[in-house]
Amino acid sequence: MSATLEPIPPGILSLADYEAAARQRLDEGAWAYFSAHAGDGLTRRANRAAWDRIGLVPRVLRAVREVRTDATLFGRPLPCPLLVAPMALQRLAHPDGEVGMALAAAAQGAGFVLSSQASTLLETVAAAVRRDDSGRGPLWFQLYFLSDRAATLELVQRAEAARYEALVLTVDAAVRTPRAAEQRAGFKLPAGVGMVNLPASEAASAGSLGALLARAPTWDDVAWLKARTRLPLLLKGVLHPQDAREAARLQVDGLIVSNHGGRTLDSAIATAQALPAMADAVAGALPLLVDGGVVRGTDALKALALGARAVLVGRPLIWALASAGAAGVAHGLRLLRDELAVALAQCGAARLADLDRSLLLADAPPLLGRDI
Amino acid sequence: MSATLEPIPPGILSLADYEAAARQRLDEGAWAYFSAHAGDGLTRRANRAAWDRIGLVPRVLRAVREVRTDATLFGRPLPCPLLVAPMALQRLAHPDGEVGMALAAAAQGAGFVLSSQASTLLETVAAAVRRDDSGRGPLWFQLYFLSDRAATLELVQRAEAARYEALVLTVDAAVRTPRAAEQRAGFKLPAGVGMVNLPASEAASAGSLGALLARAPTWDDVAWLKARTRLPLLLKGVLHPQDAREAARLQVDGLIVSNHGGRTLDSAIATAQALPAMADAVAGALPLLVDGGVVRGTDALKALALGARAVLVGRPLIWALASAGAAGVAHGLRLLRDELAVALAQCGAARLADLDRSLLLADAPPLLGRDI
Amino acid sequence: MSATLEPIPPGILSLADYEAAARQRLDEGAWAYFSAHAGDGLTRRANRAAWDRIGLVPRVLRAVREVRTDATLFGRPLPCPLLVAPMALQRLAHPDGEVGMALAAAAQGAGFVLSSQASTLLETVAAAVRRDDSGRGPLWFQLYFLSDRAATLELVQRAEAARYEALVLTVDAAVRTPRAAEQRAGFKLPAGVGMVNLPASEAASAGSLGALLARAPTWDDVAWLKARTRLPLLLKGVLHPQDAREAARLQVDGLIVSNHGGRTLDSAIATAQALPAMADAVAGALPLLVDGGVVRGTDALKALALGARAVLVGRPLIWALASAGAAGVAHGLRLLRDELAVALAQCGAARLADLDRSLLLADAPPLLGRDI
Amino acid sequence: MSATLEPIPPGILSLADYEAAARQRLDEGAWAYFSAHAGDGLTRRANRAAWDRIGLVPRVLRAVREVRTDATLFGRPLPCPLLVAPMALQRLAHPDGEVGMALAAAAQGAGFVLSSQASTLLETVAAAVRRDDSGRGPLWFQLYFLSDRAATLELVQRAEAARYEALVLTVDAAVRTPRAAEQRAGFKLPAGVGMVNLPASEAASAGSLGALLARAPTWDDVAWLKARTRLPLLLKGVLHPQDAREAARLQVDGLIVSNHGGRTLDSAIATAQALPAMADAVAGALPLLVDGGVVRGTDALKALALGARAVLVGRPLIWALASAGAAGVAHGLRLLRDELAVALAQCGAARLADLDRSLLLADAPPLLGRDI
Repeated sequence: MSATLEPIPPGILSLADYEAAARQRLDEGAWAYFSAHAGDGLTRRANRAAWDRIGLVPRVLRAVREVRTDATLFGRPLPCPLLVAPMALQRLAHPDGEVGMALAAAAQGAGFVLSSQASTLLETVAAAVRRDDSGRGPLWFQLYFLSDRAATLELVQRAEAARYEALVLTVDAAVRTPRAAEQRAGFKLPAGVGMVNLPASEAASAGSLGALLARAPTWDDVAWLKARTRLPLLLKGVLHPQDAREAARLQVDGLIVSNHGGRTLDSAIATAQALPAMADAVAGALPLLVDGGVVRGTDALKALALGARAVLVGRPLIWALASAGAAGVAHGLRLLRDELAVALAQCGAARLADLDRSLLLADAPPLLGRDI
Repeated sequence: MSATLEPIPPGILSLADYEAAARQRLDEGAWAYFSAHAGDGLTRRANRAAWDRIGLVPRVLRAVREVRTDATLFGRPLPCPLLVAPMALQRLAHPDGEVGMALAAAAQGAGFVLSSQASTLLETVAAAVRRDDSGRGPLWFQLYFLSDRAATLELVQRAEAARYEALVLTVDAAVRTPRAAEQRAGFKLPAGVGMVNLPASEAASAGSLGALLARAPTWDDVAWLKARTRLPLLLKGVLHPQDAREAARLQVDGLIVSNHGGRTLDSAIATAQALPAMADAVAGALPLLVDGGVVRGTDALKALALGARAVLVGRPLIWALASAGAAGVAHGLRLLRDELAVALAQCGAARLADLDRSLLLADAPPLLGRDI
Repeated sequence: MSATLEPIPPGILSLADYEAAARQRLDEGAWAYFSAHAGDGLTRRANRAAWDRIGLVPRVLRAVREVRTDATLFGRPLPCPLLVAPMALQRLAHPDGEVGMALAAAAQGAGFVLSSQASTLLETVAAAVRRDDSGRGPLWFQLYFLSDRAATLELVQRAEAARYEALVLTVDAAVRTPRAAEQRAGFKLPAGVGMVNLPASEAASAGSLGALLARAPTWDDVAWLKARTRLPLLLKGVLHPQDAREAARLQVDGLIVSNHGGRTLDSAIATAQALPAMADAVAGALPLLVDGGVVRGTDALKALALGARAVLVGRPLIWALASAGAAGVAHGLRLLRDELAVALAQCGAARLADLDRSLLLADAPPLLGRDI
Repeated sequence: MSATLEPIPPGILSLADYEAAARQRLDEGAWAYFSAHAGDGLTRRANRAAWDRIGLVPRVLRAVREVRTDATLFGRPLPCPLLVAPMALQRLAHPDGEVGMALAAAAQGAGFVLSSQASTLLETVAAAVRRDDSGRGPLWFQLYFLSDRAATLELVQRAEAARYEALVLTVDAAVRTPRAAEQRAGFKLPAGVGMVNLPASEAASAGSLGALLARAPTWDDVAWLKARTRLPLLLKGVLHPQDAREAARLQVDGLIVSNHGGRTLDSAIATAQALPAMADAVAGALPLLVDGGVVRGTDALKALALGARAVLVGRPLIWALASAGAAGVAHGLRLLRDELAVALAQCGAARLADLDRSLLLADAPPLLGRDI
């Protein structure tokens, strides 16, 4: 299985430009599904605004003869510090779905995190990506705790068998309620698109709050899972420094600072607001990644300077996929990666390791619960 | 007397959605009366903005198998920490008026505070609500000081006789001047709607500033009233920490941090701004409640995390009443309560007691008179 | 000479409402002249915004049986702490001009400061006002330093002879350049309206920067003037604490914290921003007054709580004069004074002396040159 | 060669008014080229907003009989502290191009910095300006490091031979990528307009990131250049205090605090934000200049009060040039200089040396990387 090659829509000069293009291509339901936010969209807007509010104070005249964007994570080289965030049901956006997205990521050296709610079998995605492993970014598998541990373990073992390189356990979406945009659009899954990796019972719709909570994982479940997989285990959706310290104590392998793109708890703080205190809390004990609103190279640079090891990009790549399939995603990632390289050079940073907070100036300092 | 059952207007997905629906249903005068604000509306807008400016820093992976929203107040269990704020003349919004509102609150386990300026006899409301006491929230009676103590006491004794469970003395509206929206709409009370619980002299319109001030209560009146009722006595409309300390000294039973929904003193601080310093001032000596701009479950959660024991909701429920009578109010309260439960789960809080300021991050710290 | 009695335009519920009414009445040139601001209008907008950004934290249950707005200034009682700011050429706004404005102020117990650039003889205004002195506010005379001291002194002596009660020396407008709005409207003085109190040479248009500076007063001129008049001498247009200290040292009798309504130096700080540091600087050694953007009773209350003894109102009263002559001004002042009285009561303040900074909460603390 | 004299468009009352006039005159491509910004325009907007956010706290009654705007720089008197910023290809804006701009600057006593990417030979500009040296501002030459040192040195020697008075080495634009506005407008250089001072290979379009970085200068190149020219050497594009300290250590002669008008690194901090920390860092060891968003006399005054010795103005003068050629530029500079003189007088400053931070009040203090 391979992705068809589509033309790039005219006028796309930056990854952000794909949103308008996608709005024209997607039907109302799919648009609503992917663009939806929780509540009033406070967190979704805050994610973007928080990057914009951080100013850069560049260094000049440094010896930047060559800019490199590579990193290392879990002992594996990363060609660039970008990953495709786990997103469900990508075949809603484009027939090539997760395969198209993953191939495009691989072509650009970006990582790919397959959602356990993918509309393509995890084995199919892995096989497509593995045809050519040179220069490819990491391939990870995201999961939720399923209603029983045996089903969860079976999914983990399938991911291990397909040689996924890390597990991402999402911990901020135990409770998922319908979002207004989806409800107003009357969104329903079209025939032929579904969560094909999950048992039928799990793939069904949300259910009652009580039922959802009953399966919500705890730190004990994290310890249980960590003991049963040889893969690095990351937690996605952590914003509180206390939780970061607990994760470090349990020797979790990494954290993704995330608010689920503003799709779960509305008015959760922006990830750019959360990152400094999170970085202080873990103090290098485990790597931090971050997502939420990143669409420009300078956004990624700020995230890295605030202490993130890599950055996940979500919706903007769905818009690229919807607009031009794998070619759109590859193009969008290329634009983002090039912007990052240029921004690095403009900041006098030859390597990602040259980035730190001395390059940043915030308009308003985030205060964690101190002054309220 | 019971409330008719009306259909919920289409497209109502959150309590806030009722405002637009009500605007279509209400005539200009009633709309003006309920939506009016003092002055330029600074305080009314500040109330909403202040909740939005508080960010949530959720906890994850806590053992939240079940979320409970119940509380205890004055030794009585509250099914949920929501009460209908005292609002005058609810029959202006809907023929079922206070009875519809109170029955809906009871059905959802929310409390109901009857305004002494209600358009329904306090005994009628109490009788309607008491047909079924199971799982019902508290029934309280709000009053102003009347022009003489005897009349005030008579009203209190009627409330006690009808088994209201607490008295709410409003202390921020001694002076009430016409609001621009009402004046522009030429608002007049329609025939058949009036303040039926008050002596005719009291129900008449505002009168001169001097006349209003002559009856304005003081701390002495509070002490006098407290000595004459066996009911818990709350003061509504307190924003200053010094007044909170005085209330604690006089053994007042509770305070409602309120600016009257922005209907009295324009540019009074938002209640979310006032709450932290108020909580610090009383230091647990008496329970705080709060109202003003609460329309989302996350607003209520923030209020509780800042130290409120319960939250009162006003205008949004008038819009629900106007849109669909008691069914609308019940629906609106249900949406709000469900949002609160979901937000609790998303913050890793199984009980209201798990909420505290460590879950919050404010954009701009409130400064009480220190830095000006 | 007396003012005609005109009807109040419909829909005027607050002093601010007169602006729209005046816009309809005034021709383009007069509108441009009075509404003009310097530069980009930053200071003019800042004046208003600064009042709005100050929150009130009212006190409750205080013994406010009666609210009094009277003050004392220079040993003379003031019925209310409001004065009409000195404004040139009021006959451009209405045929009754300064006489209408002054009579209306007197009727409401407000003070009146006649501009030396008035379009009515200072003796005429004084005579009109003095027909009935009961309950009248103070009558002051504003002046600039003229091109020579003899002419300045002659003007002062005329004011003393006409029994003006204080002198206001404006010190922030030595340099006056045409404002864009006036230039775009091609504003020219109509026949019959002029600066009738000034020598013809002084009343002529601005002249070169050098010529203007040549007559700009210094602290020496202030000392000289103070030695030659028995009237209290106030300086208008002081914003810097260092200048306030210098004024106190020279035993100046009072200061008016003012930025000339945003008509001189654009981006001068708002007067509400300047007031706290000014009050700290003089520490009660001399009274402060303030103008700039005051249009609501709560604005005046905040000014008084920040340390001002009285408040001057400018443009809003020109709009009232233009809309309905003296009746409009009296009505506008009455609305403002009533709003102040109501706000006092709502803040638990029976007297102006009860106001202080403990009633205020600022969103953003003003920082005087410290952190830049 | 001399500049033709064109009429000033009607309605130009301030330098900023030229932008709208230029938009009507320029074709789409030239407009796009000059108005373009990097990324989302965050830095370009921040430049303007940062000046507006600084309030002025003027002094009064000082002995300002005469206002002087002259300064001294590198031992040479400056009639006024304004310079035309180096801007490429000015013949795109107007046939008179750099000659018209330079003559207008000379006529107003402002300095002129010729871009090495000028569309006029540097010798031609120098000859035109030198016909009359009385009261002229300084004539400087801007350059980038070219692909080899010999070519760079040859350019420097031509500038020296033509008696340019200082060299400005731009250090913030090693990497230059196409800007969206230019791309969308399909901008191409018209025939007959080109970078005539550069070797053909250098004047060609940008090239790969690697190629650009290969020629990017370092501190070693600065030291090399400084050793090979007798002219004062300034670095343009420095924002970080650490770099300012390094420049001082290398005895660089001056720094221009600049973010390239928001045309290179988007989200670089505003120059007004950078200036205070830069001034603290160099502590008078070398003079600072600044550009970015300056369009009002008060902007320039704030820059000088924050520690800049002079101010460069860019785009606004291109708009003036496009609107009315040299006459427009002279008029625009005159308006700006007059506004500065008036603002000085209004702040009680007779000389530029009277300006310091005690005249300023910032709404939000800039925090350099401390609190993030």
